Amino acid sequence: MIVTNGESWLHFVFAARGTTLARIWRRLTLNVSFALVMTLGHMTYGWLDGRDVTPLPFTLIGFVLGIFLGFRINTAYDRYWEGRRLWGQLVNTCRTLARQTQTLVGAGLGDAALAERRRRLVYLVMAFPHALRMRLRGEEAMVGDLAAFVTPTELEQLMGERNRPNALVQRMAEQLDEAYRAELIHPMHLSLLHQSLTALTDIQGGCERIANTPIPFAYQVLLRRIVGSYCYALPFGVLSPLGLMTPVVVLMMSYAFYGLDALGDEIQDPFGSDPNDLPLSALCRTIEIDLRQRLGEAELPEPAQPHHGQLL
Amino acid sequence: MIVTNGESWLHFVFAARGTTLARIWRRLTLNVSFALVMTLGHMTYGWLDGRDVTPLPFTLIGFVLGIFLGFRINTAYDRYWEGRRLWGQLVNTCRTLARQTQTLVGAGLGDAALAERRRRLVYLVMAFPHALRMRLRGEEAMVGDLAAFVTPTELEQLMGERNRPNALVQRMAEQLDEAYRAELIHPMHLSLLHQSLTALTDIQGGCERIANTPIPFAYQVLLRRIVGSYCYALPFGVLSPLGLMTPVVVLMMSYAFYGLDALGDEIQDPFGSDPNDLPLSALCRTIEIDLRQRLGEAELPEPAQPHHGQLL
Amino acid sequence: MIVTNGESWLHFVFAARGTTLARIWRRLTLNVSFALVMTLGHMTYGWLDGRDVTPLPFTLIGFVLGIFLGFRINTAYDRYWEGRRLWGQLVNTCRTLARQTQTLVGAGLGDAALAERRRRLVYLVMAFPHALRMRLRGEEAMVGDLAAFVTPTELEQLMGERNRPNALVQRMAEQLDEAYRAELIHPMHLSLLHQSLTALTDIQGGCERIANTPIPFAYQVLLRRIVGSYCYALPFGVLSPLGLMTPVVVLMMSYAFYGLDALGDEIQDPFGSDPNDLPLSALCRTIEIDLRQRLGEAELPEPAQPHHGQLL
Amino acid sequence: MIVTNGESWLHFVFAARGTTLARIWRRLTLNVSFALVMTLGHMTYGWLDGRDVTPLPFTLIGFVLGIFLGFRINTAYDRYWEGRRLWGQLVNTCRTLARQTQTLVGAGLGDAALAERRRRLVYLVMAFPHALRMRLRGEEAMVGDLAAFVTPTELEQLMGERNRPNALVQRMAEQLDEAYRAELIHPMHLSLLHQSLTALTDIQGGCERIANTPIPFAYQVLLRRIVGSYCYALPFGVLSPLGLMTPVVVLMMSYAFYGLDALGDEIQDPFGSDPNDLPLSALCRTIEIDLRQRLGEAELPEPAQPHHGQLL
Amino acid sequence: MIVTNGESWLHFVFAARGTTLARIWRRLTLNVSFALVMTLGHMTYGWLDGRDVTPLPFTLIGFVLGIFLGFRINTAYDRYWEGRRLWGQLVNTCRTLARQTQTLVGAGLGDAALAERRRRLVYLVMAFPHALRMRLRGEEAMVGDLAAFVTPTELEQLMGERNRPNALVQRMAEQLDEAYRAELIHPMHLSLLHQSLTALTDIQGGCERIANTPIPFAYQVLLRRIVGSYCYALPFGVLSPLGLMTPVVVLMMSYAFYGLDALGDEIQDPFGSDPNDLPLSALCRTIEIDLRQRLGEAELPEPAQPHHGQLL
Repeated sequence: MIVTNGESWLHFVFAARGTTLARIWRRLTLNVSFALVMTLGHMTYGWLDGRDVTPLPFTLIGFVLGIFLGFRINTAYDRYWEGRRLWGQLVNTCRTLARQTQTLVGAGLGDAALAERRRRLVYLVMAFPHALRMRLRGEEAMVGDLAAFVTPTELEQLMGERNRPNALVQRMAEQLDEAYRAELIHPMHLSLLHQSLTALTDIQGGCERIANTPIPFAYQVLLRRIVGSYCYALPFGVLSPLGLMTPVVVLMMSYAFYGLDALGDEIQDPFGSDPNDLPLSALCRTIEIDLRQRLGEAELPEPAQPHHGQLL
Repeated sequence: MIVTNGESWLHFVFAARGTTLARIWRRLTLNVSFALVMTLGHMTYGWLDGRDVTPLPFTLIGFVLGIFLGFRINTAYDRYWEGRRLWGQLVNTCRTLARQTQTLVGAGLGDAALAERRRRLVYLVMAFPHALRMRLRGEEAMVGDLAAFVTPTELEQLMGERNRPNALVQRMAEQLDEAYRAELIHPMHLSLLHQSLTALTDIQGGCERIANTPIPFAYQVLLRRIVGSYCYALPFGVLSPLGLMTPVVVLMMSYAFYGLDALGDEIQDPFGSDPNDLPLSALCRTIEIDLRQRLGEAELPEPAQPHHGQLL
Repeated sequence: MIVTNGESWLHFVFAARGTTLARIWRRLTLNVSFALVMTLGHMTYGWLDGRDVTPLPFTLIGFVLGIFLGFRINTAYDRYWEGRRLWGQLVNTCRTLARQTQTLVGAGLGDAALAERRRRLVYLVMAFPHALRMRLRGEEAMVGDLAAFVTPTELEQLMGERNRPNALVQRMAEQLDEAYRAELIHPMHLSLLHQSLTALTDIQGGCERIANTPIPFAYQVLLRRIVGSYCYALPFGVLSPLGLMTPVVVLMMSYAFYGLDALGDEIQDPFGSDPNDLPLSALCRTIEIDLRQRLGEAELPEPAQPHHGQLL
Repeated sequence: MIVTNGESWLHFVFAARGTTLARIWRRLTLNVSFALVMTLGHMTYGWLDGRDVTPLPFTLIGFVLGIFLGFRINTAYDRYWEGRRLWGQLVNTCRTLARQTQTLVGAGLGDAALAERRRRLVYLVMAFPHALRMRLRGEEAMVGDLAAFVTPTELEQLMGERNRPNALVQRMAEQLDEAYRAELIHPMHLSLLHQSLTALTDIQGGCERIANTPIPFAYQVLLRRIVGSYCYALPFGVLSPLGLMTPVVVLMMSYAFYGLDALGDEIQDPFGSDPNDLPLSALCRTIEIDLRQRLGEAELPEPAQPHHGQLL
Repeated sequence: MIVTNGESWLHFVFAARGTTLARIWRRLTLNVSFALVMTLGHMTYGWLDGRDVTPLPFTLIGFVLGIFLGFRINTAYDRYWEGRRLWGQLVNTCRTLARQTQTLVGAGLGDAALAERRRRLVYLVMAFPHALRMRLRGEEAMVGDLAAFVTPTELEQLMGERNRPNALVQRMAEQLDEAYRAELIHPMHLSLLHQSLTALTDIQGGCERIANTPIPFAYQVLLRRIVGSYCYALPFGVLSPLGLMTPVVVLMMSYAFYGLDALGDEIQDPFGSDPNDLPLSALCRTIEIDLRQRLGEAELPEPAQPHHGQLL
């Protein structure tokens, strides 16, 4: 995520990093070059004399394109925002689980063994966001990083798991079950804790749904064909009235159209590490800080800082 | 579902499979041929001299068409996405039920009979997505495939059922009831498990709602009449200014309009096995893998692979 | 609900039943006749020479009309879909109540009296959708049809009730209370059953909300005034360029505008028995079949069949 | 709320009551008069010769205005519909509370004192919608009307309360607590009843949110400035082509624009007693009838009737 | 929040405070000056003779801009309204927690120590909205103000916390735990109270999500580039037909476009203290009054009053 902090309006206009230009410069250059060639051909040799298209169809098809692109950015943003909402719920659920662990599991008993049991449980909770992030970003090789939160035995078990976040939830349930059989949790409160575990499972499933389900293929195909035809046909429609200004106008319009499409591409899968993606690592860190402080730990990690203006 | 994996922009423009062309090429060809005939007639014999319509009404009606098509793709996509969301919840609920079964039903007791009881319950859970998929796709003849998950007696009972997924939920409830009477489940935790069963019932009902309720008939009629009139009247509006380019423009616009409508058709019922439909079989497999691993099984099936780029 | 089953595209274009034409042919005929008279008057006597309006204002007002009609169909469809969703939830809740009754009320006890008690409860659940349908469709005279599901005493009580679905829920609660006092239900599971009853009450209230709350009056007034002025003023704007084609264009545009408005009217109250309304009777039947099969009844009614292509 | 009952299409076009005309006739008259003066000045003295603006900017700005007005009516309607939804939930929750009181509070005991206790509780529930309506409509002086539902002592206490609906919920909780200590309610069922009380609190908060939070001021300012400039500048853009028809066109367009804005104003705060506001009194009456019948009372009040076509 | 109270329509048109003008006057002035220079240059020296762009591309790009700006104000308003909804839920949850504390924690016992215990808990609840407001507005230095609600020890602990609202929820949970161990709360009702605490955590997380997640950077960049190019290129498109009116038209259009963008900026982060932001302080006060009255306190603070028409 690109972090902004009251930057001026112009900062946005002239930004280089994190814009969609990197994705579209090739097709943009090609399109504008084509317009340039047609313009020069027409100005010099009169290629299109008596053969130019009037702007009429561009107006007519403009309605459809507008609606299609509007649909595109709305659905892409909805996916982005739902992803963010799910990670927000993850923050909430981890905080809630920490609170429930501290006050409902053998609460009030000053036993050191009990405190350790609670600490172990909260550490498993801290491990969950990391495991989920690795799964969503395909960083499954980084599983060793979980060693900070789980015992070596647990880590080895996790290694053999195909679905590590789910295995962590199962592990929490087993620990709760142990505590329950040791009569440290009231059956009713065990229900409450299980509901929080269910929330973790729902969050994981929600993220996987967004990550694994693209916008339907046929939508993309239709949109790109319409946009492509439009931008390549544009010179024929505006050469007569615009003359030498044609390539400039084609540049502006194709930047707008290709840009909107590329923006949808970038935003619709919000769990990657593109500049406009969600800062999953920073959110993991936030959860870690909150939970460690709730455990009374004195040495807290620092919140994640943006790197070249980007929070990962 | 067509699986894409970082294909280039051009891949979408020139794709053949999974686009809407297969659905609309007939009406498209007819429409463009009509435009061609009118154009040639006009160029050769001056059919429309002094009788051509100005482009004005096309602009005026364009607003309405645009809004109508926008509504069309939005509702179709909402149905698609709600279908996906329901199957995502199915994944979550199955994982949750597996966890609850393993940790709330006679948990901590090392009894082999008990482990078998839990295994049987989790196998019923695995059977549910398959049964739901068969119901939604009208593959009820494949009911034999459920033999992998249920006992022969249960399978025979299922054969006689009109609503098999519902019967499976009932079967789970009965098994839970047995365990409850054997005092293996706390009454409070039975409530929790029953809530998960209710979630299964809600998911089934949601899928049936989408599959059985089309977009209101009168909407479709009105939309198709407007689109049809528009595309067939178009040559009269653009022949004078465009001349020989008329059929090309008619092709572009009718491809856009018919294509958007056909796209809505394809997406709005997302449980079929069209190229753009949801990969129900793959999701069933995902659930199976997750649950089998939770049961500690060593031989896990492989995740479903796309066949010619399509995940079923 | 009009049932379609893979009909061709042309079927929709040339359909007669279930379209909005029945609602609008009068105002459409009047409007087009007016356009015809103006056209003939202008062509013959030059009525509008030097007095015709340019198309400009029609373009300008087109934006507003488009947005207004877009709002109209979106809200109407939202109401339709919410109605469908509520009846879908009704299907789910009835199935859930049947399962809960069978497995939580004195479950496992083989007593015949107990089985009868459960059967009575499930029959009350079956009666609820019928009672709700009658209330929503104003078929309160058909209350005798409930005799199939309730005892004669209960039926007589229902006769005296102003709000019969609500009285049925109350009756279910009383039966549960009896069972509870007979120690056939655990207090916790009574809570679960009561939550399902609350769901029934919420569904009823949701349906009543849609049925009793029209789109605000002032919206309808403003929309119809704008549409009416637009369609009657249209000939003045297009007579000069279009000449004899004017009535055709007026026909197309006023069909689109009046049709969209009428479509909103038809869809926004989805509980009637118009061709495009929801098939409440068929849904009641679906519930009945599911629940009877869960009770182990052998003679199941057939699913409702469409009559002249319409499911009631 | 204006009640309609199958009125013809023309009824809407020529309605007088409940339209937005009452709100906008002043600014409409002024605007059209201005257009008239400009037209006459131009026709007679050629005021604008060579100085008239082309219609171009009106088309350009039309997009923005259209989107802005679309946003306006959508948000206004969302507020209206959310208000209606909240009152619908109020109906549901009151019905549910009545059922829960009758069947979970000392249920089955035939004691007259107990029946009175339940009656008292249900009467408090009936008082809540009235108290909420008074708060939302600023009718706090009518608090005496609550005497029909609460004891004189309770009424006096309510007099001193700043937030009467909230005090009523508290009073219900206290009565439940008394019953609980008298062992008439199972602790689990007390939870259920408390959840219904929480629902009442949530409904109240939701209504207060809508009533107290206007559309952001800056939105209104920007919208009204654009609409105002547009409607006053319009004559300059259309005088040349339209001539004497200018005031008619200005009337149509400014009626549409001012009307849409005024409509948003009227609908966005749906709890007043304007013709298009929600019929809160009628809903209170509906709740009262339902609950009194559940208590077995024989004399039920009549449902509220529309007065001059308006339900309050 | 700017408070309006039936102000006339003109009040909005001529308002100075709280509009977006303060944010955009610089870029507006620059843009209009540029248009002025171009106009004068063209009128005097014929700078653009034969080189002016036709209005065509402005119409074409208008669709995209309109859709983009529509998306902008919709998402900004959604964030605003979600923020308001979260604070509305905060009001509800605090009222609910107060009611639950008064009636479920050792309820009915007349003990003074117990009353004090309940008072302490309700005071912690009152502290939560203040702590959340400080966190969202970056007023963490004002933490001393919490002294009115917490004990000196608690205040000192809070000082050392990075996440104070979360620490307050933890503190409430600890107090509930103490009461639970003293057998003043039934385990089931403790669950209910814990659910309310979870609601507080969810509200906090929701507010943080809105405050910390901007609209994706690339969206802003693309939008501002299109708007900027559009407004600076506008004179080239309209100089020929409009002549000296060009700067006026440029002013109107760029005010609309820059204004909409700035409005989005102002509204999208609704927790600041800009004129159009949410009145968090006033909401904190509302909660305080409600809760103090529930505790039976006689001296209630006054509701917050708008200062120069603005509620903070």
